[in-house]
Amino acid sequence: MTRSTARKRVTRVVVGESRILREDVLAVEEPLEIRVAGTPLSITMRTPGHDFDLAAGFLVSEGVISRTDQLSAIRYCAGGAVDGENTYNVLDATLAPGVPRPDPDLGRNFYMTSSCGLCGKASIDAVRTLSAYPVAADAVTVPDAVLATLPDRLRAGQDMFEKTGGLHAAALFDAASGELLVLREDVGRHNAVDKVVGWALKDGRLPLTGTVLMVSGRASFELVQKASMAGIPVLAAVSAPSSLAIDLGRELGLTIVGFLRGQSMVVYTAPERILSKQGAVV
Amino acid sequence: MTRSTARKRVTRVVVGESRILREDVLAVEEPLEIRVAGTPLSITMRTPGHDFDLAAGFLVSEGVISRTDQLSAIRYCAGGAVDGENTYNVLDATLAPGVPRPDPDLGRNFYMTSSCGLCGKASIDAVRTLSAYPVAADAVTVPDAVLATLPDRLRAGQDMFEKTGGLHAAALFDAASGELLVLREDVGRHNAVDKVVGWALKDGRLPLTGTVLMVSGRASFELVQKASMAGIPVLAAVSAPSSLAIDLGRELGLTIVGFLRGQSMVVYTAPERILSKQGAVV
Repeated sequence: MTRSTARKRVTRVVVGESRILREDVLAVEEPLEIRVAGTPLSITMRTPGHDFDLAAGFLVSEGVISRTDQLSAIRYCAGGAVDGENTYNVLDATLAPGVPRPDPDLGRNFYMTSSCGLCGKASIDAVRTLSAYPVAADAVTVPDAVLATLPDRLRAGQDMFEKTGGLHAAALFDAASGELLVLREDVGRHNAVDKVVGWALKDGRLPLTGTVLMVSGRASFELVQKASMAGIPVLAAVSAPSSLAIDLGRELGLTIVGFLRGQSMVVYTAPERILSKQGAVV
Repeated sequence: MTRSTARKRVTRVVVGESRILREDVLAVEEPLEIRVAGTPLSITMRTPGHDFDLAAGFLVSEGVISRTDQLSAIRYCAGGAVDGENTYNVLDATLAPGVPRPDPDLGRNFYMTSSCGLCGKASIDAVRTLSAYPVAADAVTVPDAVLATLPDRLRAGQDMFEKTGGLHAAALFDAASGELLVLREDVGRHNAVDKVVGWALKDGRLPLTGTVLMVSGRASFELVQKASMAGIPVLAAVSAPSSLAIDLGRELGLTIVGFLRGQSMVVYTAPERILSKQGAVV
C-alpha cells in the first residue's frame, strides 16, 4: 500500500554559505480514481491514507449520498494493474439498492488513464508523452542569489493579495537577471499559472526557455505538469513540493526549488542549474 | 464585467476585547467555463481577470495546443444568460484549421450548469438544491474563546505537516467544547475535507450539527459547498475566504470565520453563532 510520506535526496542551499546534500521527508501525492459500480466518476490527486473516507466524503460532497445506509461497500479495485500489482489507487463504491447512480460526467483530469493500473508512474508517462517542449535540453543556469530575490519580487507584485490576503500568485522571471516578466493572481494556484502561460502563448514566447516560474504556496504534480507543457525549466515555490511533483521533475529534467525563503532554499531536482558563487556543487 | 475584488461587510472579533462591524476587500471567485468550438471542455473556479490568458494557458497545459498559431480566437460567449446579460464567465476558443479538437471529457465539476448563463448565482443555487441538510436551522453557538484555540489544536494534530511542511489539514471540532473529533491531512485541501466527511458518514454522524470544520489555508466556494453538504454549520479558516464562498455561506446560513489567528478573527457570515463573553453583538 502506498504510504503518506516519502524520502527524497535534496540539496539544501544557503546563499553564499553552504550547499548540503541530505534526505527530506515529503508528502506523497498519487492519483485516486473513484468509481461507482465500476463506472469512473472522478480522479483526484491525493495523499494516500483514509482513501475509503475520501471516496465516501466525495460522494457526500457531490450529493450522490447523504446517509450511511446509502453506501453498501467500498473496495480497492484489485488486479488489473499493468504489472498485475494492486496500485491501491482505484476504488469502487457500491451504492445501496434504489440509490440513483451519479452522472458519470464528473471531474476527470486530462492525464487520467482509465486502466486499473492508475498510478503516479502512469501520470508521469502521460505528461512526458504530451509535452511538446522537452525541458531537459534547456542549459540555462540560475544564480542562487538571484533565486533568493524572487519571493520579495513576487510579493511586491501581488496587488490583489495586499488588498485581500486571499490569493495565490504565479510569476515568470528571467533566469539570468531575475527580471519579472509577468505576474498573475488567482484564488486557484493552477489558474494563476495558466494565466502566465496563456500570456506567454499570446506573446509568441513558447517554449519558455531560460525562465523561472515562481509560485506562492506549494509545488504539486499539476504545477510541474503545467511548467513542463510550457517549456519552463525551473519551478520555484515558497513551500514544499509533493513527492510526485519531484518524481515528475526528475523524469523531465525540470529543476524544482522549494522552501525559497530568505537566503535559503531546497533544490529537489536537477540542482546543476542552480549556481552558487563557487559554481554548482551537486 | 466581473471584477477581481469585492467588498463585504464583516465582523472583526478580538476575543475579550472588541467586536467591530466593517467592510473588507475580498478576492472574487467565479466559475469560468472554457469551450472549444462550442463544446464545453472545463469549468474552473477562478478570479476574474486575464480570462483569455487563462483559457489559452489551460489549452497549453492540457496539450491541446503548443504554439501561438494553433489558436485562432477566443471570445466571451455573449447573450445566452438567463436574464440576457453576459456573465463573462463562458469563453469559446477557436482552434486553427487542422488542430485536432480535444477529448470533450475533461475536468467537469458537479455543480456546473451547461447553460451560457453560468455564474456564481447558478453555482449557489445548485448547492442549495443538492444539499440534504439545511444548516441555517442549526442553532449551535460557538464561544469566540473556543474558536481561538482551534488553530493550535489543528497544528498540534498535524503529524504529516510536521514532517513534510507540505500538507493541508481539515479537522472537525465540537462547537461547544472545542474537542477535536477527527483530523485529516492531504496535499489537497478539498481531499482533507472529504476525508473528514467520509469518516463522519462511516460513523453515522451526518448531518454534522453542532460542529466546527477548521481548515488550514483559505476558504473557497468548494469548501463551503462541502461543509454544507455534510450539514456543518461553522467553517473556520486560517486565511481569507473568497467572495463567492461568502455569498454561498450567507445564502445557506453557514457561519464563515477567516483569519483565525491568535485572539482575533473575522466573521464573514452568520455572526450570531459566534458568542463573545458578553453574548453575540452583531
